[in-house]
Amino acid sequence: MRIHPSFASIGLSRIVQISERARVLAPEYEKRTGKPFIYFQRGEVGYALPPFVLGGLQEAIEKGLTKYPKSGGESFYKQAVIEDLGRRGVTGLQQENVLATMGGQEGLQLVFSYFRGGACAGFTPCWSCMFDNIFPYTQTQFVPVPLKPERGWAIDWPLVERVLTNVDTFYFNTPHNPTGRVFSKADIVRLCELCNKHGVLLVVDEAYRELAYSGEHFCPLEDRRFENVVVVNTFSKSLAATGFRIGYAVSRRADLIEMFTRGEYTQTAGVPTPIQYAFSKALASAQRAEWSAAYKAEMKARGDALASNLHKELNSHPPEGAFYCFVDLTLGAIGADRAKLEETMTHSLLEQGVAVVPGSAFGADFTGWARLSFSTLPGKVVAEGAKRFSEIVLGK
Amino acid sequence: MRIHPSFASIGLSRIVQISERARVLAPEYEKRTGKPFIYFQRGEVGYALPPFVLGGLQEAIEKGLTKYPKSGGESFYKQAVIEDLGRRGVTGLQQENVLATMGGQEGLQLVFSYFRGGACAGFTPCWSCMFDNIFPYTQTQFVPVPLKPERGWAIDWPLVERVLTNVDTFYFNTPHNPTGRVFSKADIVRLCELCNKHGVLLVVDEAYRELAYSGEHFCPLEDRRFENVVVVNTFSKSLAATGFRIGYAVSRRADLIEMFTRGEYTQTAGVPTPIQYAFSKALASAQRAEWSAAYKAEMKARGDALASNLHKELNSHPPEGAFYCFVDLTLGAIGADRAKLEETMTHSLLEQGVAVVPGSAFGADFTGWARLSFSTLPGKVVAEGAKRFSEIVLGK
Repeated sequence: MRIHPSFASIGLSRIVQISERARVLAPEYEKRTGKPFIYFQRGEVGYALPPFVLGGLQEAIEKGLTKYPKSGGESFYKQAVIEDLGRRGVTGLQQENVLATMGGQEGLQLVFSYFRGGACAGFTPCWSCMFDNIFPYTQTQFVPVPLKPERGWAIDWPLVERVLTNVDTFYFNTPHNPTGRVFSKADIVRLCELCNKHGVLLVVDEAYRELAYSGEHFCPLEDRRFENVVVVNTFSKSLAATGFRIGYAVSRRADLIEMFTRGEYTQTAGVPTPIQYAFSKALASAQRAEWSAAYKAEMKARGDALASNLHKELNSHPPEGAFYCFVDLTLGAIGADRAKLEETMTHSLLEQGVAVVPGSAFGADFTGWARLSFSTLPGKVVAEGAKRFSEIVLGK
Repeated sequence: MRIHPSFASIGLSRIVQISERARVLAPEYEKRTGKPFIYFQRGEVGYALPPFVLGGLQEAIEKGLTKYPKSGGESFYKQAVIEDLGRRGVTGLQQENVLATMGGQEGLQLVFSYFRGGACAGFTPCWSCMFDNIFPYTQTQFVPVPLKPERGWAIDWPLVERVLTNVDTFYFNTPHNPTGRVFSKADIVRLCELCNKHGVLLVVDEAYRELAYSGEHFCPLEDRRFENVVVVNTFSKSLAATGFRIGYAVSRRADLIEMFTRGEYTQTAGVPTPIQYAFSKALASAQRAEWSAAYKAEMKARGDALASNLHKELNSHPPEGAFYCFVDLTLGAIGADRAKLEETMTHSLLEQGVAVVPGSAFGADFTGWARLSFSTLPGKVVAEGAKRFSEIVLGK
């Protein structure tokens, strides 16, 4: 049998693997020590579904919105997305510019399937799912552009210029998983201009757009000069709705959206109709602003609890957005030691009740680092976890 | 930009195109003539969602089952599918043999993506979505094995044997869209044995398994000898739930299911958790048997209304299952005339208030035919439509 290599090369998620181990180890650890197990590994949101999503779901069923979704997304859903983006400074979009997707993940998979076999540049450390799933499945060759941790995860502009001459796409995620950086408008405009100059499609992953604590999120679509851009978003994080698998892809290039629509129709025949209805209502809900503000404030507090309780010697960059902080486990060791230190340290942390994701999952250049997520635990536990983490890493 | 040809070659669904035209023409036709417009084109189910699905959906939200689905499907969903198959004579399955999918469509797309660039044989006429979407998107070369209309859509066994020597997969749909045939157990066992002999994976599409009016549906998994089989199913038709996009792929080959799981996780991160819960409850619901029996009886009555009111001279094969009847619009014309006759006749039918799908959408060998679906209209309207259709085609 001829079997396509794109399946065999998909890796199993390191994050899921660690979560499985944590699930086994945690009860024993908590029983033995009386201390809480620290789940720093997952980007899951510990919040319940906002009540204003539920109402729309019930209404959809009552209205009989249980039939085949319209290819590419229901008009009411696309309209709700357009209006929501309008409130955020992105204007001039039509329904032909929007595609309903299964979370952000399907949006990314469609973009890179469209460029199957092509080359994509992007900053590292980079969301592990791109390496484990999206790139292998779509046979995309990834060209890493490492951020500079010693300068607060700054961009290496000469390297950006160099790689753009030879790729189809640039994958850009802000607020950034796993460093917690919120890139500035100046940085983003510069990146857009460079992509324009080189005819590279900029793929913007805005999964964490609602969670910018310092600085302000800037979407390239706010500037109409930047046409060759696809923005992918999801309500997984912003409405604590990971289980509903709903998001969208949006681009001023309607030709691209039409192509992605064909792929999306082929794969799934569309996002479930009642879910599209529920989220179209939720986006326009009067209760949303208050819920989102409280949610963001809580996440910011958790991030602060993490940053202020990590030991100064770890030199970690405080999270400006998203759920994450990226920390060097090796205290600056260099060379081949880093891989060994990453392995022994993540193991040691797990044994002592702290689950983190090893940095190598986010790019080979970041072996020896670890991602700490503060989305699942209340601030007090985050603080305790940060202290315990610091003590273990510093060997104190 | 390098763009992968699999997207550009996806066609727009002929069925959707005709539905769009029907939607424009119908009000004018009904106003002018006072007669109902006959929607014979769509395989949509005119039924409301069964109430026992809704209950499970509400329960899922109350239970907080709104977080990321487990990769490949929740255990409760897989278990419900295994138990449901068990009641239908398919035994010995474990959770590793089941994958939750977005309807049947994602199941098929995953299978053929796995064999991307391979060759697939299958009977024609064949569900148009395979030609319009699944095969081009997965770059599958399709090898048609025409059924014999003059012998009640019988299988051409010498041709089956010949094509199996040179393909990876065989796509098999029973009850059959668009002919309405329910293939016999003897036929299916023979097909399985031939696929086994030639090392060909049999892909069985059981979207209409609950709708066998004469004869009995046989699933190859009922016979444990047949391991190299993937069965794809959906609750779109059997629970009138097209808008929920839920189904499954099942195979005794856990290695294949594991590969499909990787692809599925990459594309969508899974079927929405609350939907998996609702359907796991619906499958085991005490109310299901009664609902399904009434639904099947109604669909059978509609099929009978169609068959008994189509004019005898059309020689149509009465539907044994599914929603469909496949009729020669050309009264047996041969050669190049068939394409012209198909075009003028479908146009003429539309003008006179009858929407059908032209046969060429189901395979080039069936140009000049038409698919009539009886799923959306009550029996009385189906009968009136069958008479009007006959008069127009026979020119009476």
